[in-house]
Amino acid sequence: MDFKATLNTFQKRVESGIGQWVPSKDTAPSHLHAAMRYSLEAGGKRLRPIIVLAVAELFQTIEDPLPAAVALECIHTYSLIHDDLPTIDNSDLRRGKPTCHKQFDEPTALLAGDALLTLAFEILAKAYQKDSALAKDLILDLSSAAGSQRLIGGQMEDILGEHSDYTKEQLGYIHLNKTAALITSAMTMGARIGKAAEQEIAMLSEIGKCVGLSFQILDDILDATSDNQILGKPTGSDQENEKTTYIKLYGIEGAREQAKSLTGKARNLCMEIQGNNHFLMELIASLEHRIL
Amino acid sequence: MDFKATLNTFQKRVESGIGQWVPSKDTAPSHLHAAMRYSLEAGGKRLRPIIVLAVAELFQTIEDPLPAAVALECIHTYSLIHDDLPTIDNSDLRRGKPTCHKQFDEPTALLAGDALLTLAFEILAKAYQKDSALAKDLILDLSSAAGSQRLIGGQMEDILGEHSDYTKEQLGYIHLNKTAALITSAMTMGARIGKAAEQEIAMLSEIGKCVGLSFQILDDILDATSDNQILGKPTGSDQENEKTTYIKLYGIEGAREQAKSLTGKARNLCMEIQGNNHFLMELIASLEHRIL
Repeated sequence: MDFKATLNTFQKRVESGIGQWVPSKDTAPSHLHAAMRYSLEAGGKRLRPIIVLAVAELFQTIEDPLPAAVALECIHTYSLIHDDLPTIDNSDLRRGKPTCHKQFDEPTALLAGDALLTLAFEILAKAYQKDSALAKDLILDLSSAAGSQRLIGGQMEDILGEHSDYTKEQLGYIHLNKTAALITSAMTMGARIGKAAEQEIAMLSEIGKCVGLSFQILDDILDATSDNQILGKPTGSDQENEKTTYIKLYGIEGAREQAKSLTGKARNLCMEIQGNNHFLMELIASLEHRIL
Repeated sequence: MDFKATLNTFQKRVESGIGQWVPSKDTAPSHLHAAMRYSLEAGGKRLRPIIVLAVAELFQTIEDPLPAAVALECIHTYSLIHDDLPTIDNSDLRRGKPTCHKQFDEPTALLAGDALLTLAFEILAKAYQKDSALAKDLILDLSSAAGSQRLIGGQMEDILGEHSDYTKEQLGYIHLNKTAALITSAMTMGARIGKAAEQEIAMLSEIGKCVGLSFQILDDILDATSDNQILGKPTGSDQENEKTTYIKLYGIEGAREQAKSLTGKARNLCMEIQGNNHFLMELIASLEHRIL
């Protein structure tokens, strides 16, 4: 199968996992579950859960990586719902559709986010209960990646620093935590399900860090250089908001060089990992070229 | 030691547990951690964490119940921070102090709530990692009690039904989930740490349900009958908001009868549990008389 077909198969698996592990929209209270499902089913690349599946399958897995993939997508989706709220980004559109609080209302979006965050840990504890050491490790990975010193910490620093000049160190901190934390935990969670050795888990964590940072730099480049139609969302918003980005600090070419060097490093590390890493290598390359 | 002295000792233990398990306010990003600590340290009865400690100590515990008590208090505190936000209850005061979004700001309060919710699961996975089956069971208890079909579900139904007439069944659903869910999980989490038998866990779960419902009925009675000074928060708010309460459906005397019958049932069940249940019995009685 070629890359796009494999990617498509992975996406379909993630979507079927959501169907299986998230309460249906008819579950009481149905208004709340409809909002959770609305945001989870609003599309998206499914990058993080696909990484969980692809990494787990580098190894000989006994446990199904799908529940962990869904749990991670719940965390990613909750963070988007809360970021879109009027009190933070005040975004009306996400992936071309009304954001959760626009489609429903603010209290519902707030609670739907809380519920997805809580559900992520319930899924992990329930799905891996026969291997409770694995459940505990996955919950440790995900809760620390999503916590106050990683994902939420990055978001907090981003809000505090808006409209001000970040230093290179501050921008690095924000992106490492806001973006790379969950991508890194996608790698390590997949590796844990695959019962990878500690050394391999550390390498996959490093790959996650490189991929996550490169992903964010490429986002900044796309925001600065694409037009709205290509990207499917408003562009040039960073400049309008006077936001400090990689572009502002390093210039377009400098940012491109950094992204290239990071994905290069990720691919080199990836070659050292056992198993059929063909898909993962292409996934990393595809991020650089953003054909995803 | 008499009841009040024991209660005070338990409260001090909970507060020292918070000091130990929650990042200090100097931890980066310090603004976020200061907000988390502010709300956690704003006082409160510590009823839920104290139940965890008191129940665990009915049994011969190997594991320390304190981290589980702190995790539960993190969940309770996050739910108060989010409920107080302008988009839900729009409350300026909590326990006589400015609410989190008043003391800090709305984005910070939103993220502090998210971070406390996430931290609860990180604490459980980390503190009980040597007994990962226990960690998994505690996380299952807490995530389902705090999830979309219990705590958050009750809150959602409460918001949806505001200013409308609830039936007795609807009001029962809301209170069972909004209030009794966490109190029940305090009982079962304590019991699991005490390695109680399944039958005892089920009995403690039933005690939690009775205590939780009675707690809410007594809240409704106090709101209707006390003056502001005694309660330390505005009273009569239910009637002002035309909220359907136990008082509206059953009258003051009817509500009192129900609360009494529920605490009576809880005490009877409690007497059947092994160990020194003296403190727990008094705790249940104190809720009825609200000397807490």
